[in-house]
Amino acid sequence: MQIVVLGATGLVGRTMLQLLVDRDYVSGDPLLLTSARSAGKKLEFRGRELICREVHAEAFAGVDIALFSAGGDPSRTWGPRAAEVGAWVIDNSSAFRMDPGVPLVVPEINGDLIPASACSGGTGGIIANPNCSTIQVAMALAPLDGLFGIREVQVATYQAVSGAGQSALDELQRQVREQVSGGPAEPSAAASAHFPRAMAGNVIPAIGSQLPDGSYEEEAKVERELRKILGRDADLAVTCTAVRVPVASGHSAAVRIVCEQPVDCQAAVRSLAASPGLEVAGEPHQYLTPREIAGRNEVHVGRVRRDPNDERALLLWIVADNLLKGAAWNAIQIADRLAAGAPK
Amino acid sequence: MQIVVLGATGLVGRTMLQLLVDRDYVSGDPLLLTSARSAGKKLEFRGRELICREVHAEAFAGVDIALFSAGGDPSRTWGPRAAEVGAWVIDNSSAFRMDPGVPLVVPEINGDLIPASACSGGTGGIIANPNCSTIQVAMALAPLDGLFGIREVQVATYQAVSGAGQSALDELQRQVREQVSGGPAEPSAAASAHFPRAMAGNVIPAIGSQLPDGSYEEEAKVERELRKILGRDADLAVTCTAVRVPVASGHSAAVRIVCEQPVDCQAAVRSLAASPGLEVAGEPHQYLTPREIAGRNEVHVGRVRRDPNDERALLLWIVADNLLKGAAWNAIQIADRLAAGAPK
Repeated sequence: MQIVVLGATGLVGRTMLQLLVDRDYVSGDPLLLTSARSAGKKLEFRGRELICREVHAEAFAGVDIALFSAGGDPSRTWGPRAAEVGAWVIDNSSAFRMDPGVPLVVPEINGDLIPASACSGGTGGIIANPNCSTIQVAMALAPLDGLFGIREVQVATYQAVSGAGQSALDELQRQVREQVSGGPAEPSAAASAHFPRAMAGNVIPAIGSQLPDGSYEEEAKVERELRKILGRDADLAVTCTAVRVPVASGHSAAVRIVCEQPVDCQAAVRSLAASPGLEVAGEPHQYLTPREIAGRNEVHVGRVRRDPNDERALLLWIVADNLLKGAAWNAIQIADRLAAGAPK
Repeated sequence: MQIVVLGATGLVGRTMLQLLVDRDYVSGDPLLLTSARSAGKKLEFRGRELICREVHAEAFAGVDIALFSAGGDPSRTWGPRAAEVGAWVIDNSSAFRMDPGVPLVVPEINGDLIPASACSGGTGGIIANPNCSTIQVAMALAPLDGLFGIREVQVATYQAVSGAGQSALDELQRQVREQVSGGPAEPSAAASAHFPRAMAGNVIPAIGSQLPDGSYEEEAKVERELRKILGRDADLAVTCTAVRVPVASGHSAAVRIVCEQPVDCQAAVRSLAASPGLEVAGEPHQYLTPREIAGRNEVHVGRVRRDPNDERALLLWIVADNLLKGAAWNAIQIADRLAAGAPK
């Protein structure tokens, strides 16, 4: 199969490339595409150096699967063109997620939306990879929705800086080094190109642009994408406060759900532990932290407890590697399914 | 007036001592008391060096106000004795907070519980200073409770390491330096005497000991102390997830409240902005971060927005310096009121 990675030099692009290394269906070299600025950069794949090329109109001819992670604008420009010439585009940007004609897929939850005939030649299309925080929350909520019928979801996130890309991560490291060295006293609220305020030793309740109602893009994504993934309408009330924390990798979320019926903690834990791609952190009352789950594909659920004030409400602590299940791993899982449906 | 500081060498003790410097009612030197371990340490006050003494039974004779910040056990041992000999004990520990006979005071909210006759000679007593996260949440909720009648409160905290004391802060700095220097690869989940997991570049949803129902002490404190401060019963449903973040100073809280009646954002902001000790961060949709509010006495409320799914629900972002309004400043405010009621 012919595979393309668009945005190959980014954090998610490089992570996807690493995951492609041991895919049987990737026989030749993936085609690595980037913006003009990154063209010419070299990345290793199975011990060989591959050179990144600038994306262009003819690049998608003959391509089976195109993994996009270059941002919304490149996705809007190249996604439809790639699909038109027969490629299946797995898009990490938010460009098509809420498009009614585009499936928004977390394979463990709604993998049946991935067309079985995907790679039988000729047809292509776009499949959207959801927002990183949304994926891990959806993973934990899907089995509970089946058990208890969820009516309300309240989310507070603790999001890692890698979600904002390599240059944001570099900026965090720079700020941390500056703090440690006791260098020139920087203003405590100093913004940078990557963060609206100082990020080292701070938390910032603002991810993405602010919308007219006062919420931020990231929060709106969680609210609407969660509904779409769970196949629910406006009857599922989702509220989110999204906060960036000075953690390199690994998103956490403190989540409260209110259900149609009284919740049973033990049943919840059994159901979570039995769900593919989910792990319950030891005893239901235990938990894992972002630094502990770095590099793991699973979503980890801990601190499962009933709301002391409401027999219909459950509290959860959900942690996942935002670059893996939150982005690259979820995309590769979709690619795996597409490849499995392809003619041998 | 004769003032005592018990636990003078701790973070909160030292902050209280600094705040005492410009109190008119402190004419002489405060008496600085500590454990045996810290006795002999020297602290500066108004340009002079004061020597810390080990706390002992006779230390409280003739004392008007005793500021306690040495932990629960010393408070339980010395609080009643100091009160018995006529001192007013302002206690930062959790030892007496839920004692029905002890007022739990945030002066702007329930300062009327501070006895007016406090220092008229002879009588003494104990006044409890609330938990740090609870104080800042209570400050924001009190005016809103008056406006809309709060029924439910859901809190997710982002708590600074200084809340765990100077040695925890030192341990965080050590871990950060180790990360920056790329020193010996420490296990990602390494616990220490101060944190149950690695703290640098991590978040930990566990503050204090774990209770049988799976919640942690810090969460239970927020839940029950909030009710007591707001003068509410079990009819106020409070739920909290308390999380330690790698921030030196400044607690943040993402809070959702559900009220008896539909909320009006503009009315909420007006009421908050008009409340003593509260500041609304610019436009209602703006916010401040912990690093920005370090050293300030006020509680800062930002990101005031209506829950998109519930006309009775309001979302808030509440930030305060946990060593000041969350501890030392609130205690000194209580001392100020006691001193104001004293005979000249």
